Amino acid sequence: MESFFSLLKRRVDDCSSLLCVGLDPHVADLPEPTAEAALRFCLTLVQQTASYAAAFKPNAAFFEVFGAEGWNALRQVIQAIGEESARTGSRIPVILDAKRGDIASTAAAYAQSAFEMLGADCITLSPYLGQDSLAPFLRNPQKGVFLLCKTSNPGAGDLQDLEIVSGPWADDRQPLYLHVARLAQDWNTRNNLGLVVGATQPAALARVRAAAPNVWILAPGVGAQGGDLSAALQAGLRADGKGLLLPISRGISRAENPARAAAELRDRMLESRNP
Amino acid sequence: MESFFSLLKRRVDDCSSLLCVGLDPHVADLPEPTAEAALRFCLTLVQQTASYAAAFKPNAAFFEVFGAEGWNALRQVIQAIGEESARTGSRIPVILDAKRGDIASTAAAYAQSAFEMLGADCITLSPYLGQDSLAPFLRNPQKGVFLLCKTSNPGAGDLQDLEIVSGPWADDRQPLYLHVARLAQDWNTRNNLGLVVGATQPAALARVRAAAPNVWILAPGVGAQGGDLSAALQAGLRADGKGLLLPISRGISRAENPARAAAELRDRMLESRNP
Repeated sequence: MESFFSLLKRRVDDCSSLLCVGLDPHVADLPEPTAEAALRFCLTLVQQTASYAAAFKPNAAFFEVFGAEGWNALRQVIQAIGEESARTGSRIPVILDAKRGDIASTAAAYAQSAFEMLGADCITLSPYLGQDSLAPFLRNPQKGVFLLCKTSNPGAGDLQDLEIVSGPWADDRQPLYLHVARLAQDWNTRNNLGLVVGATQPAALARVRAAAPNVWILAPGVGAQGGDLSAALQAGLRADGKGLLLPISRGISRAENPARAAAELRDRMLESRNP
Repeated sequence: MESFFSLLKRRVDDCSSLLCVGLDPHVADLPEPTAEAALRFCLTLVQQTASYAAAFKPNAAFFEVFGAEGWNALRQVIQAIGEESARTGSRIPVILDAKRGDIASTAAAYAQSAFEMLGADCITLSPYLGQDSLAPFLRNPQKGVFLLCKTSNPGAGDLQDLEIVSGPWADDRQPLYLHVARLAQDWNTRNNLGLVVGATQPAALARVRAAAPNVWILAPGVGAQGGDLSAALQAGLRADGKGLLLPISRGISRAENPARAAAELRDRMLESRNP
């Protein structure tokens, strides 16, 4: 059975791209505030950028805000990505950006919702509740998780930068986010657990990469948030030149020509990767 | 403008109850796995227990698992609680157990979804992304947040118990969950931010209460998870005999007579509170 990150790696190779196209139908970007407009926005973006996308990342919040109709739109977007994959013969993974985090039967219900009901291949989760909160999402190796590790928002430091002096790496006096990175490296026994690390702080990204040399990292922040592409690649790529996925949303969807913007981003990533 | 915790306090006084009735339409408890069955399950439970409920807490996961129809069912359940409130003249707050956590416009969309689209009064959130991830949910004092602090699942210690030696209380070498408790006490400037602390560990609950003397605490785990009711009340109540809400789901919904189970739980809480 192919693991999630084998699937992702194959797609990265197929399209020579580390670009993850974010599908954020923010109401400000829609002609009218409806689920139907959100759906059209995403379907157009998928058509325009599929050739350059190593993965698509729909953001659950921008669908949930339209209630039941938004939920239907989200399912249709994921279905359309599946049809595009079938058409081209190269499967494009779908990462549901949902940042869920709960335990026991509740976590199992979220996993069922994301993977079976909606048909996503992967989901973003929060680490605060610990290992057993991830288990229902990791049980099937074909489905993956990106775990929040180090984010780039102003409040990220409130918890993530706090220095830890207990636990398995007590001697190191390291920030919480590096602790999370090491846990993920240990917990990733089925090649389906990665990390979310902001691309705007290449130094932190490099520390995560050193702490978790094998895991895939989803690194948002290039483009709209000002992250430098080549610095992020240098800091975050694995030794094999893979293991890093760079999600970009508005930098593509708001471009005059989204297809060209995606192609250019793909090319810039390739050049920076192979200087 | 009445703050969320003023609303909750008024309801606690109106019904002399610290009981929060959990609405968890787990598929195993339904006659058939449909959103319609989940809706009927919840509407019946609301009717049976409204007299004894200081609040209702629907769990988003068990609705999401039914997709768009589940989303509609959730909205209808919250609407029915509003109608029950209007009928009796005492508003029963609805806490959406969703454990979301995101930033910027995404957090704003989740807040809009929970408070405007669904009509909930309060939501549970994860603290990992820090203060600005809470801001969109706290802006309106009438809407509230319970922030995950110390949970009772096996993996809770993976992050929550780690000892911290930096940040505003660096000298204290305290576990992360107490750091979160103190942050919440500081951030609660509009009387609408509380904490989630498992009732199964009264010692931890008492430490949170000492670190955050004023905040409301939602303490799950009494009943099904084996938490002792009077120990939880002793550890978690504020000096004014309030500030604690005890959610119970299966202990009521699986009882032969849910109304009587809720009434008995309400009474046991009253007795333990005023021995």
